[in-house]
Amino acid sequence: MTTTLQSWIGGRWIGQESAQVLRSAVNGRPVAAAHAEAIDFAEAVAFARAANKPLLALDFQQRAARLKALAKFLMEHKESLYAISAHTGATRTDSWIDIEGGIGTLFAYASMGSNELPSGNVVHEGPAMPLGKKGGFAGTHILVPRAGVAVHINAFNFPIWGLLEKFAPSFIAGMPCIGKPATATSYVTEAAVRLIDQSGILPPGSLQLVIGGTGDLLDRLREQDVVTFTGSADTAAKLRVHANLIRHSVPFNAEADSLNCAILAPDVTPDDEEFDLFVKEVAREMTVKAGQKCTAIRRAIVPRQHVEAVANALKARLAKTVVGDPSREDVRMGALASHAQQADVAERVAMLRQHADLIVGDAAGFAPVGDGVADGAFFAPTLLLCQNPLQTAAVHDIEAFGPVSTLMPYDDLDEALELATRGRGSLVGTLVTRDPKIAAKAVPVAAAWHGRLLVLDREAAVESTGHGSPLPALKHGGPGRAGGGEELGGVRAVKHYLQRAAVQGSPTMLSAVTGEFVRGARVNESSEHPFRRWFEDLQVGDSLLTHRRTVTEADIVAFGGLSGDYFYMHFDDIAAKQSQFGKRIAHGYFVLSAAAGLFVSPAPGPVLANYGLDTLRFTKPVGIGDTIRARLTCKRKVDRQKRDANGVGQGVVAWDVEVTNQDGELVASYDILTLVSKRS
Amino acid sequence: MTTTLQSWIGGRWIGQESAQVLRSAVNGRPVAAAHAEAIDFAEAVAFARAANKPLLALDFQQRAARLKALAKFLMEHKESLYAISAHTGATRTDSWIDIEGGIGTLFAYASMGSNELPSGNVVHEGPAMPLGKKGGFAGTHILVPRAGVAVHINAFNFPIWGLLEKFAPSFIAGMPCIGKPATATSYVTEAAVRLIDQSGILPPGSLQLVIGGTGDLLDRLREQDVVTFTGSADTAAKLRVHANLIRHSVPFNAEADSLNCAILAPDVTPDDEEFDLFVKEVAREMTVKAGQKCTAIRRAIVPRQHVEAVANALKARLAKTVVGDPSREDVRMGALASHAQQADVAERVAMLRQHADLIVGDAAGFAPVGDGVADGAFFAPTLLLCQNPLQTAAVHDIEAFGPVSTLMPYDDLDEALELATRGRGSLVGTLVTRDPKIAAKAVPVAAAWHGRLLVLDREAAVESTGHGSPLPALKHGGPGRAGGGEELGGVRAVKHYLQRAAVQGSPTMLSAVTGEFVRGARVNESSEHPFRRWFEDLQVGDSLLTHRRTVTEADIVAFGGLSGDYFYMHFDDIAAKQSQFGKRIAHGYFVLSAAAGLFVSPAPGPVLANYGLDTLRFTKPVGIGDTIRARLTCKRKVDRQKRDANGVGQGVVAWDVEVTNQDGELVASYDILTLVSKRS
Repeated sequence: MTTTLQSWIGGRWIGQESAQVLRSAVNGRPVAAAHAEAIDFAEAVAFARAANKPLLALDFQQRAARLKALAKFLMEHKESLYAISAHTGATRTDSWIDIEGGIGTLFAYASMGSNELPSGNVVHEGPAMPLGKKGGFAGTHILVPRAGVAVHINAFNFPIWGLLEKFAPSFIAGMPCIGKPATATSYVTEAAVRLIDQSGILPPGSLQLVIGGTGDLLDRLREQDVVTFTGSADTAAKLRVHANLIRHSVPFNAEADSLNCAILAPDVTPDDEEFDLFVKEVAREMTVKAGQKCTAIRRAIVPRQHVEAVANALKARLAKTVVGDPSREDVRMGALASHAQQADVAERVAMLRQHADLIVGDAAGFAPVGDGVADGAFFAPTLLLCQNPLQTAAVHDIEAFGPVSTLMPYDDLDEALELATRGRGSLVGTLVTRDPKIAAKAVPVAAAWHGRLLVLDREAAVESTGHGSPLPALKHGGPGRAGGGEELGGVRAVKHYLQRAAVQGSPTMLSAVTGEFVRGARVNESSEHPFRRWFEDLQVGDSLLTHRRTVTEADIVAFGGLSGDYFYMHFDDIAAKQSQFGKRIAHGYFVLSAAAGLFVSPAPGPVLANYGLDTLRFTKPVGIGDTIRARLTCKRKVDRQKRDANGVGQGVVAWDVEVTNQDGELVASYDILTLVSKRS
Repeated sequence: MTTTLQSWIGGRWIGQESAQVLRSAVNGRPVAAAHAEAIDFAEAVAFARAANKPLLALDFQQRAARLKALAKFLMEHKESLYAISAHTGATRTDSWIDIEGGIGTLFAYASMGSNELPSGNVVHEGPAMPLGKKGGFAGTHILVPRAGVAVHINAFNFPIWGLLEKFAPSFIAGMPCIGKPATATSYVTEAAVRLIDQSGILPPGSLQLVIGGTGDLLDRLREQDVVTFTGSADTAAKLRVHANLIRHSVPFNAEADSLNCAILAPDVTPDDEEFDLFVKEVAREMTVKAGQKCTAIRRAIVPRQHVEAVANALKARLAKTVVGDPSREDVRMGALASHAQQADVAERVAMLRQHADLIVGDAAGFAPVGDGVADGAFFAPTLLLCQNPLQTAAVHDIEAFGPVSTLMPYDDLDEALELATRGRGSLVGTLVTRDPKIAAKAVPVAAAWHGRLLVLDREAAVESTGHGSPLPALKHGGPGRAGGGEELGGVRAVKHYLQRAAVQGSPTMLSAVTGEFVRGARVNESSEHPFRRWFEDLQVGDSLLTHRRTVTEADIVAFGGLSGDYFYMHFDDIAAKQSQFGKRIAHGYFVLSAAAGLFVSPAPGPVLANYGLDTLRFTKPVGIGDTIRARLTCKRKVDRQKRDANGVGQGVVAWDVEVTNQDGELVASYDILTLVSKRS
């Protein structure tokens, strides 16, 4: 009996009656069936909206910690997912990309969120800037949760990664998500979401799962919601003009298939290691996941004089690729995800063959290995050659979403770059070259048309993650045909689910709104040194105005002797008099060191270490006889939910430092970064 | 005879035959006529595309310098624009916003571009990050010119500012622009663009002007182009789904009218100065530009118990506002821009009056002052009161684009915020409060629905630029009904006209592509100290590995004595042994100072000053007996096209500093910022 997949809506798993049967890509046997019951999307959206409150009861740091816990839980249960993933035609390596790549993305966002986002639910995108000369009016920007719902519509090729890579940044941003995987492989997504449910780690309503169609879901969205889409450019274009999304200016972020290219640069000869790297990369992108990646290399652009050498090397390499049942150890390439895909790819290859010669991929001799594979959705690796790609639009436009690539010769680098742009916008491109000058010329030109570019040489190859692999820290998504969207790319992706607003007001108001001290705001001064306060007790705005110190010639002399810094500005009275300042001045680093001497609290206390310093500017020279003092103010507190080796909690505290002279003029300005202990 | 306005297309001023006659808003007399000839948009787009090359022959810094020169030129010729602007019904103050506000935006972008953008045409959006453990593979992001055309479609209310605020960031980004002002006031834009032509400062094709309709312009755009739109939400929704723009994923950035609000917070009483500030701000937003600002306050949200006091105060203030011919000195409010607008506002006020009571604005008693004003497009300041705004959708939805605002009472702050969101996304909102706690609560909630928020109190009021004024450094554009776009906001706006791409490769390749040294890249070492090279001769990657220095107990003692920093970690053997490091360690600032001593070149030379330091991290403690050395590498050169007081050119050079210990481990890492002289 075939399992009926269920949707996870309103906190319940719903669906009993079977509808569309989903078959194994390997042998055509039924794996599961979508459910027949219609989903009440009013309920789904209401449930998600109700989840805003519990999600925002946590802050960025706490959601990042939940994400890390979830990633750990899924990693412990990953084997059950591999078993199910095999039905999609994926080899173990293919499934690794989907399963562990997806879980790895959760880990990566948990870590980036913890390192780069604040406590609380307001990101201060500073610095605040004065908007007048008197200091009472300033402006800055904040990013806040949109208080809406994120709907993620995904493609069939990565049923787990596809959901998790979007869920991670939207969850950290505090948005409840509704995930809608492509039905063909939704049994894998369902298995992963059931694990997420079992984990009990997410606040209820953080995630819902739609098996089957989206019904009237998009009609129920409003201004504060977001829709993301991964799939074909055609479908993206249709959804983008959805009347309700347009009516409410609902942000729509698309990542669409594109005809990505790899360029073998003119400096590389068949004797170079880079030549083999190019061939390996093209072959790998054709066969991994049976070429069903929106990032796969569809167009291999090579110097005309090396076309034959490349074709022969690819032919030899593809001939060694064993295709068949992916559960077999010797198999390197599995099946397409469904018979529908098999038919679609065959049709498009037939179209391409009207414009290009077949180099590899004779269907007649194709014999996948394994039991029952005759009923599977296999497709032979297919390499084509288009001799006149500048004159042949079709090879830049028709995408066969399988193990299919077209070789294209070029005569010079400009022509190669012109061919690259003929894809009208791609997710990713690779340039294989040994010459940094070629990279310096080609990459900025290609970058206008690509979301990501890989420059491959022997040095990079050792640790290269490859042309086809989006990484959590790097942007995924390209212009034009690739959809014009952006995913991943570090905390940039979190910001897509936040709303940016400029804020104007007095520094005191901006401090209150941003949660960060803004210069000019009211400070809290008391007899207790702020360095003696535990993390919990310390407040943003706690401040110390130090005693003063007169800078003497003896200080400069001693500092030069100790540091070894005898720069003429400090020691050569003749040259210093001719300089911009007209006199000897103190070392900037002396001012910095003396300021630390003014505000340090020597005995052991909550402040554990000063581990860094940001944005130091020496705004005015300090001369002999000048008298300096410092103001130290707690600027920002981040509770990363961390404990030291002894189990004592600690947080990060940034301090604003202003060093002024006897006339109250600012001479040095910077932030120092410290670790501060908690009471417990 | 009426002047026929001309379009500036393909470098020629075209149009001889008159079409639509444009009339003075003040007295109805003809001012000019649009031209009858159809524009050849194929020519316009081709001319713009041809301008990509000369535009990108300049770099960011050079384009910023051109923008500054253009701003100066326009400022010198501004009076001719005031004369023309008066026909739109604008007072001198209104025209100042359009003319000098627009020119000021050019100055601001010239300055921000010079301060924040690099030399060259690649923005390195770093830092580069290692993508493996061996150091041979890294990733980063770059932003490059899109190599396309920017089409700016603008509204009638700010014919100069509207064009210039979009032109400034797109020109700096290297994009040729085609500007299309609203026809009604296009005679003002035409005058400004003629001045731009006369200046001769811009490369040919940098700007073209369309008088009249856009014809098939949008059908000619492709992936690399950008469209911006300012106007009504309805028109934005129509253009957004333009088939050709969708087909090519052409970015579409909209800024639409919205029903902006101002909230009088519950802490403010009629006795507070803030009460008067609120009344003044509402009255000002109703009357400046006769309320024809997409940022104007349409909804004044006030505590129920103060509604009457606010209404009376507004009534008194509006009664004193002299309306009439804006050329008269006593006039504070001019006309609407056209009779069409006058009819439209009247119609919408009639609709609003079905849901709200009229407080001010009896048309019967309305008598604008001046000659011929009976034929002008004047409209009486109109204040309405809606007693049940939570139950009345219309007052949050019907926008009368004139001197019209509706008072709305609320019972508590949550209700006030709920009313604010009923605008379904606004450009700007104002909160008038004395209490930072109220701002801290309300602003992040309101920020999810607004592009900009002003917190007004007596401190901010002294220099406040006001609710309705977008500023170059702050984001302009709001979610939902406001169009979901972003304009201005500093260099963020320039980035909208650039394409972001992730780049992966070896550090050497990333250095070549970004134009910035990336750690791990090959460096250039020679016997000449890099501090002794003139700006022109210095190359990114020029590097010095210093001699070594062993850190001794005597150093720590001397440094403590000199700085006054006796922190226990350096001086208290007992506490230091119990600390995380288990021993006394050297001061971080000593390491920094000693590193400077290692790499300084004492004699006068090209390096004029070390004016700052960024991103200092102490990555490992330095103990007694450790031996340190530094590597100093030229990281980034920016030629700001500036000269010192003696006419000697200088540039900014950032240096990467790595301080390592005897085991080659990094102990401190930072960038230092210097000014370096040019040879000439």
